[in-house]
Amino acid sequence: MNRVNQECVETLRYLSKEEAVSMETELLRDYRFGREQLAELLGHACAVAITKIFPLSSLEKRQPTLLVLCGPGQNGCVGLVCARYLRVFEYNPTVFCHERSREGLHQDLTVQCEKMDLPFLSYLPTEVQLVNDAYNLVVDAVLGPETEPETEALTSALQAMRGVKIPIVSLDIPSGWESDDSNTDQINPALLISLITPKRCAQSFSGPHFLAGRFLPYDIQKKYQLNLPKFAGTDCVVEL
Amino acid sequence: MNRVNQECVETLRYLSKEEAVSMETELLRDYRFGREQLAELLGHACAVAITKIFPLSSLEKRQPTLLVLCGPGQNGCVGLVCARYLRVFEYNPTVFCHERSREGLHQDLTVQCEKMDLPFLSYLPTEVQLVNDAYNLVVDAVLGPETEPETEALTSALQAMRGVKIPIVSLDIPSGWESDDSNTDQINPALLISLITPKRCAQSFSGPHFLAGRFLPYDIQKKYQLNLPKFAGTDCVVEL
Repeated sequence: MNRVNQECVETLRYLSKEEAVSMETELLRDYRFGREQLAELLGHACAVAITKIFPLSSLEKRQPTLLVLCGPGQNGCVGLVCARYLRVFEYNPTVFCHERSREGLHQDLTVQCEKMDLPFLSYLPTEVQLVNDAYNLVVDAVLGPETEPETEALTSALQAMRGVKIPIVSLDIPSGWESDDSNTDQINPALLISLITPKRCAQSFSGPHFLAGRFLPYDIQKKYQLNLPKFAGTDCVVEL
Repeated sequence: MNRVNQECVETLRYLSKEEAVSMETELLRDYRFGREQLAELLGHACAVAITKIFPLSSLEKRQPTLLVLCGPGQNGCVGLVCARYLRVFEYNPTVFCHERSREGLHQDLTVQCEKMDLPFLSYLPTEVQLVNDAYNLVVDAVLGPETEPETEALTSALQAMRGVKIPIVSLDIPSGWESDDSNTDQINPALLISLITPKRCAQSFSGPHFLAGRFLPYDIQKKYQLNLPKFAGTDCVVEL
């Protein structure tokens, strides 16, 4: 690693939950980005990151099956787009949404997946061995940094993830972790994909870690002193 | 070229305007894709295609300057997203929008470009030599296949493009061409980037030709017998 890269890594900032929320508000309100636009570009980038660490050729099971767990909020929207692109990249994703979201974007993204013939599970098997046997990995798009009420369905998804032995890929933060702290009795993903910027809890994550989303205006990068690493070529993700 | 590829090229379908319009209606109404979502993914893919044929290192002028001409409709929206990604990929795009669009998405995408510090021209120089001298190439996102009323500002943009000597990159169809026919007394782009599917007029285009947008559900590909070529890896564009 040369000095320039080292300097970037040293000074890369991990945002607190408060900072992440305020940056997102600015992006939506002042920079006029749309939620639909952000879900699309982030979900696409997450799928690309997954192909880098878990290429089709590396999967152990005969079929390239993945289980994508989607929460009812923004994290779940990114998960739905990610599932759609994983299908385009020739994986076989199955989706589980805890409950039908009443949010329009979530519903639209669900229809897009259904129309791509992605199977949806109506409930999660309580026996985690069934998940271990059926899928190569689990994509965790259940909870993001925003606080969401923990419903029974969410609890069951978190419990399932604590029990599975196949690798977990977490989008933005590992579900159940506090955004500002690590929490090691929770799930332990094999791959973490931070969305837009890494959050504080990611500092204690030691596995492969990607940043998804290459669109941040320079002014906002400067304002939050992000010191993002350089993306190569036209890549939409970068390994941190 | 092996037999399989040849077969694909032979049977790739170029849609009539009527078919293209009806497919788009289905994508928006039945598949629940959003215009914001489509503009984002298509604009990104167009910028990636431009880096392939006109990489930074190939540009003749000292600064990697580009002029992106955006119409008031959907083609212009894709052009605005493309301009933003070209900036992210370290080009220096300057944008010209013929008139302020009253459409919300167009306005939001314009603000995103402005906040990325992209310069906007308030009028096009009548002397095309100024355009030849200042920019390495022109991105033509003026008119798509949909019929739009030809305003004075649009006419001046088309006239400027007929006069310039620097390469033109056209998004979807070369502006001024009829979607279903070629029209050789019109502009003659150096690169054509078809959006979603190629339109009939592209059949008579002999330069490098890319397809942008890798998201079409298989059912709709089958219904319109598109026979799209295979995209490599996670590429969002493919050369036709």
